[in-house]
Amino acid sequence: MAEVLIVGSMALDSVKTPFGAVDRVVGGAAVYAATAASLLAPPRVVGVVGGDFPQEALDLLASRGCDLQGVERIPDGKSFYWSGVYDYDLADRETLDTQLNVFADFNPTLPQAYRDSRYCFLANIQPQVQRAVLDQVNQSCFVMCDTMNLWIETEREALLEVLARVDLALLNDSEARQIADTPNLQLAADRVLELGPRYLVIKKGEYGATLVSRDDQFSIPSYPLPNVVDPTGAGDSFAGGMIGYLARRDECTAMQLRRSVVFGTAIASATVEDFGLEGLKRFGLAELRERYDALRDLVRFDPMDADMQAACDAAK
Amino acid sequence: MAEVLIVGSMALDSVKTPFGAVDRVVGGAAVYAATAASLLAPPRVVGVVGGDFPQEALDLLASRGCDLQGVERIPDGKSFYWSGVYDYDLADRETLDTQLNVFADFNPTLPQAYRDSRYCFLANIQPQVQRAVLDQVNQSCFVMCDTMNLWIETEREALLEVLARVDLALLNDSEARQIADTPNLQLAADRVLELGPRYLVIKKGEYGATLVSRDDQFSIPSYPLPNVVDPTGAGDSFAGGMIGYLARRDECTAMQLRRSVVFGTAIASATVEDFGLEGLKRFGLAELRERYDALRDLVRFDPMDADMQAACDAAK
Repeated sequence: MAEVLIVGSMALDSVKTPFGAVDRVVGGAAVYAATAASLLAPPRVVGVVGGDFPQEALDLLASRGCDLQGVERIPDGKSFYWSGVYDYDLADRETLDTQLNVFADFNPTLPQAYRDSRYCFLANIQPQVQRAVLDQVNQSCFVMCDTMNLWIETEREALLEVLARVDLALLNDSEARQIADTPNLQLAADRVLELGPRYLVIKKGEYGATLVSRDDQFSIPSYPLPNVVDPTGAGDSFAGGMIGYLARRDECTAMQLRRSVVFGTAIASATVEDFGLEGLKRFGLAELRERYDALRDLVRFDPMDADMQAACDAAK
Repeated sequence: MAEVLIVGSMALDSVKTPFGAVDRVVGGAAVYAATAASLLAPPRVVGVVGGDFPQEALDLLASRGCDLQGVERIPDGKSFYWSGVYDYDLADRETLDTQLNVFADFNPTLPQAYRDSRYCFLANIQPQVQRAVLDQVNQSCFVMCDTMNLWIETEREALLEVLARVDLALLNDSEARQIADTPNLQLAADRVLELGPRYLVIKKGEYGATLVSRDDQFSIPSYPLPNVVDPTGAGDSFAGGMIGYLARRDECTAMQLRRSVVFGTAIASATVEDFGLEGLKRFGLAELRERYDALRDLVRFDPMDADMQAACDAAK
């Protein structure tokens, strides 16, 4: 089992969905990803928080095996704050407020002990910061990165440089289309791979995820849930689950990557069942196993039977 | 192998997509479904055309084994005409013109020879017409029905009556949400099943399809294509592939239903690769086998390995 380096935001979020609202709950990409990954492998967390960040949230991460050496605390600063409201089907959200606060100057120096990490998730941050982190990890580190539409629009060159250096890019479908400048997702995937990463995972929200490499493709639907409450953090939990599994197995074969996407899918499903980290906190390895097996059953179908195969072969 | 009764529109379509345009090409739900189903089982087609409907289109259906006794020709009438334009990512379309013409009075009397059909697809027509057809087939006939947002809004009672009588409802995701009055698709599926059908298939366009029954669920992504040209007829080809396979096997077990969804998915992928029926016409059983097997590979993943299973079991 290897450790997982996770770099990203640690935040306080105010979220409103059709199912309720929460005010200033702990969130942020690195927090979701680390909480998710910690189910499978020990995370090394890199982030920055202000004096308003609850100590109990840091204690929770520590209790789940997270190394918090890389978390800078600025007692007289305020934590990154995000506030948003989701529409009726949770497919779109509107940002009401973003206050970068201490996150505005986030440009971490990795603790010496983190530099040998063999697995790393660079959550959505300015690509220049992602690049600076890449300069501090070993070449052999398996790096997965996320991004967002803002950087695609405003920091395209820096982002392309990052994509050329990572092993796996994690994008949602609209981001993949935007980077590749085509509405066709399959074509978009091919173009993103041409930019450098060996693997691309396209997140499609409630429609699941697709893993693409030059010679392989894998798709999985999302875990079916009748009670989706708050999608905040789902993508980061997915990423944490993926990289956590890869680190646990310390192996990136085609099948382990497929499995990692299934782990990510199962863990993300726990996040969206409740606000903030509540869903993830209730989700253990027993629940993970149940959902993994349920996903296997969800997509299972037999080969064509012999008669049908014969008819098809005869048509050749 | 059993015959498949297919009832629905036979049309001339003018379609514009970002990849080109066609004017007055042969289309219509029954034509797409029958062309697709004919790959697998002999369709019995019920529809109505005007004098402007090309004889060669009828000849093509006949050459593929379709029984056209149920197709009424009104030489001095005009065929159903639809014209529409798709947006840049083919996800939405705008109807520019709909002329019902001879289809306005469509209320078929089934040929005597059709009445023993054991498999039937009622394509999107006014629910009252679907109901009238249901009155003419045997109770034991396996019936699959489609509908559209217009009937959900304007003919809800008649539609609910139809749903209570069919075996399988085929809806796209927005229709399922609309009928069930909830944005959550899983909840929507449960509610549609409560209305009566034993099975529900939710079509999600480029995101695939989901088959739901009270005690089973199956999801499959769409077949990945870099060259989607025109989605017109995809849903009807999907339905034709499904019902054609069920009729060929004459068996509706849980696994045969899953397989039928895969057949539908593979056949629909051929339709969207070109305008009108061109893609379907080039698609034979050899291609069907290739895509079926490719879909199996696309969703394949191994169970958790023994170590991981043991860790999960220990957590219980």
